[in-house]
Amino acid sequence: MTKDITETGVTRRGLLRGLTATAAATVAAGAAALPSSAIKAWDMHTGVLVIGSGAAGVSAAIEARMAGANVLLIESLSQFGGSSAMSGGVVYAGGGTALQRALKVEDSVEQMYRFISLVGGVHPPLDKIQLYCEGSVEHFDWLLAQGIPYTDKLTLAKGLPMGDESLYFSGTEQAWPARELAVPAPRGHVPGIDGMNGGRRLMQALLSQARALGVKLQGRVRAQRLVTESDGRIAGVIVTLDGEERAIAVRRGVVLACGGFIHNRAMLRRYAPQLYDCSVPWGNADDHGDGINMGIGVGAAALRMNEGFAIAPIYPPEYVLSGILVNASGQRFISEESYHGVLGDAIAYHQQGRAWLITDRDSSFTFHQDNFLPVAEANTIGDIAAQLAFPRGALQHTVAYYNLHAANGEDPMFRKSRAYLRPLQGPPYTAWDLSTAQAFFPAHTFGGLHTTVDGEVLNSFDDTIPGLYAAGRNTAGIPTAPYIASGLSVGDCTFFGRRAGRAAAVGVAA
Amino acid sequence: MTKDITETGVTRRGLLRGLTATAAATVAAGAAALPSSAIKAWDMHTGVLVIGSGAAGVSAAIEARMAGANVLLIESLSQFGGSSAMSGGVVYAGGGTALQRALKVEDSVEQMYRFISLVGGVHPPLDKIQLYCEGSVEHFDWLLAQGIPYTDKLTLAKGLPMGDESLYFSGTEQAWPARELAVPAPRGHVPGIDGMNGGRRLMQALLSQARALGVKLQGRVRAQRLVTESDGRIAGVIVTLDGEERAIAVRRGVVLACGGFIHNRAMLRRYAPQLYDCSVPWGNADDHGDGINMGIGVGAAALRMNEGFAIAPIYPPEYVLSGILVNASGQRFISEESYHGVLGDAIAYHQQGRAWLITDRDSSFTFHQDNFLPVAEANTIGDIAAQLAFPRGALQHTVAYYNLHAANGEDPMFRKSRAYLRPLQGPPYTAWDLSTAQAFFPAHTFGGLHTTVDGEVLNSFDDTIPGLYAAGRNTAGIPTAPYIASGLSVGDCTFFGRRAGRAAAVGVAA
Repeated sequence: MTKDITETGVTRRGLLRGLTATAAATVAAGAAALPSSAIKAWDMHTGVLVIGSGAAGVSAAIEARMAGANVLLIESLSQFGGSSAMSGGVVYAGGGTALQRALKVEDSVEQMYRFISLVGGVHPPLDKIQLYCEGSVEHFDWLLAQGIPYTDKLTLAKGLPMGDESLYFSGTEQAWPARELAVPAPRGHVPGIDGMNGGRRLMQALLSQARALGVKLQGRVRAQRLVTESDGRIAGVIVTLDGEERAIAVRRGVVLACGGFIHNRAMLRRYAPQLYDCSVPWGNADDHGDGINMGIGVGAAALRMNEGFAIAPIYPPEYVLSGILVNASGQRFISEESYHGVLGDAIAYHQQGRAWLITDRDSSFTFHQDNFLPVAEANTIGDIAAQLAFPRGALQHTVAYYNLHAANGEDPMFRKSRAYLRPLQGPPYTAWDLSTAQAFFPAHTFGGLHTTVDGEVLNSFDDTIPGLYAAGRNTAGIPTAPYIASGLSVGDCTFFGRRAGRAAAVGVAA
Repeated sequence: MTKDITETGVTRRGLLRGLTATAAATVAAGAAALPSSAIKAWDMHTGVLVIGSGAAGVSAAIEARMAGANVLLIESLSQFGGSSAMSGGVVYAGGGTALQRALKVEDSVEQMYRFISLVGGVHPPLDKIQLYCEGSVEHFDWLLAQGIPYTDKLTLAKGLPMGDESLYFSGTEQAWPARELAVPAPRGHVPGIDGMNGGRRLMQALLSQARALGVKLQGRVRAQRLVTESDGRIAGVIVTLDGEERAIAVRRGVVLACGGFIHNRAMLRRYAPQLYDCSVPWGNADDHGDGINMGIGVGAAALRMNEGFAIAPIYPPEYVLSGILVNASGQRFISEESYHGVLGDAIAYHQQGRAWLITDRDSSFTFHQDNFLPVAEANTIGDIAAQLAFPRGALQHTVAYYNLHAANGEDPMFRKSRAYLRPLQGPPYTAWDLSTAQAFFPAHTFGGLHTTVDGEVLNSFDDTIPGLYAAGRNTAGIPTAPYIASGLSVGDCTFFGRRAGRAAAVGVAA
């Protein structure tokens, strides 16, 4: 981790000086929020308080500061960057971004909108999608202006670039049925550095920018509860600092931006039971849903809480895509070349968490990998089927049907691309366990607070909660299940984080 | 509708006398809840206020009254009975109820628990399920004591009895895989009257009982917002009466019991997009989610908001179950004899809302019915497949595979019962459209407030909200998706409604 995203030299107590233990005891009372009348004295004041240091929070902080607000950003961990710093750092952008134009990639706002609105989840938030697509070119310019390094290089290989390419097909654009619903274009914009550290690089740039603008950043401060006026307006936040409670008064707006709840097992079981069963909770260690729960605690609605990114990362290598994916009935159920999030969604949500990748000699993994374990190996498909106790004859038929058509370059059922389409023929055959519980099956959550396109948090009667804003995975945003492309989440975090920051800077005091 | 479940002769203004327009204006402010400081004067006082007159609300009212509380029950419509009065009136009960014993039906608490906990949704609420199963024998005795008429008659026919039988297999107990997970027993307990009016009869009995005990019932009063003390305790409720706002102070507890949100299109689209697409919103006209939204407005958590009862009522007649159900790939995906809620869930949630029932001469509907329309008719399966544009050869194989094994009395894939299993053979063949949008596909919602087994509403930090209780479809209870048996919802309403009523009678003032 570079210096830019570790804690600064400023002492914690120095930054939050004046914080004395006046707010204590109140949180223990069991309320989901505190009335301002319970605060004997505020320990600190700020214009805008941003909670969380991932892409959403830091983007919000930058824009709030640019709009003239005093901004304090707090982070519960000692490291800044949130789950965004653990990610590939991909931003899904299109419609003719500077990078797309430099690489002579054709794209349009309309096709980008068609892809996101038609290929993903049922009844997605069209207002946010439209704004996101229409604003994408400007947003990429903004990312460039923050100092994130992009190279004028494109790769057509599937999967996050290991080299320094900055543009690639990051999603399921080219797989059926997506390619019939929208003209595919590479829209994954990723920092141009070798390896998979794009997220760290992106956050390094955003954090540097925030500091340069005068955003105050403070680690190891955890937000506990919101404080409300009797009319419902947000007055401030109770935080803990070294185990002691402090009350921060917020004049303009609080921005909740502290991530999803993949590490909160109780929440996960209640809200997103399918994700509970995925083997690898994938997110920053403090993705406990604090921001979502604070918002719910003051009457906010939370949407799509069952949805998330369930990930079946079978490629690379691309040659395994010449194998077939089958369910517990021995039937194919999806195009194998679908994006990891589309495959994972199909398995976790729609196949009761169970599936197998069947490979032949030439599509089997040629190197040792522990992501998916071989659970059957045999010289005939019949023996594979018997070992897995599939319904009698079912897998044999599936393979015979697939082979018959693949020999003619066709896949009538799921229209797999020619690049991966050929009959399964050479033994040995192998069945790889792709079940959510046994395979390497990372997951994180998409559900969150209901917000306007400006990050204003809405209560259960569709009214805004004055002074409360949210962004990123504290909100129900662009990412829905199935997750159709890398970069939609960090893209949503930065795009709507900026809008939330601007709105909070105006806030209720304006 | 009988007199018992219409509005009483007591004048509305008489019952709520003293209500003057003191509370007005406050709701318009846009808050999801009101501080008690905003109430200039309370228009009325009660010990327990129950909101909603369905099975949950009336059961709560009865028990609260039995526990000694003054109880006012309000209903937004002029008719009492809620969605329960529209239902079949089935209560799922077992473990050796008086009726099961009288009919020499063997059952155990353990097998009932296995059925509900293993066959239904992922990670269901085991605490509620356990209590529900353990208390089922006593609960049926209580239903008898309320005067609900049950006959000592059992039917083995599938589907809600049209005759006066009171016990039947109301769910998916006998279909695979359920029958391998728990020993099947008939557990659907339904009022013993001819026709499908069980729900009206059940509500008639409960409402009579409530009135006899001295519960005050008032129709055409709609609850708008909860009123809270500064410490979070519920102080009362703002209601509208003839378009004017009134404030009701509640000393012990408010019980939210006013149903799901199947008629709130905006909520449905946001929270339960799969149900939004089902053709028939099925519930009481005021199932707008008011109770859920009032609870969320004071910081309550709401769970499983995407889930519901999506209903594909293909039987009776049972002979159509000798047909096969296929998805858009021309593949079977479930045992056709599965309960309506299990079939509906598979189609609405897991097959993108599309499926077809393929019948031959002997399994085709022999009478005119408009639930499912024939969208292909032909003398060969190949012609059916071509008319529906299924993947080339897929349906032909599905039928060949099915027929091959059915001829031997076997269904390797979904183990359909022998009673319905035989090869498809005699033309003409017909494909019936079972899509959520085109078929008769009723739906209602299961998501609701997070509650303890005593109906105490929990906030997002798992603390109770003092003075607030909920029951029925205002809560996330026993019914989850897939809905595996008729009677689990009204069963949950009555069982946990009683507990919520008892808890509210003790309430915060005790």
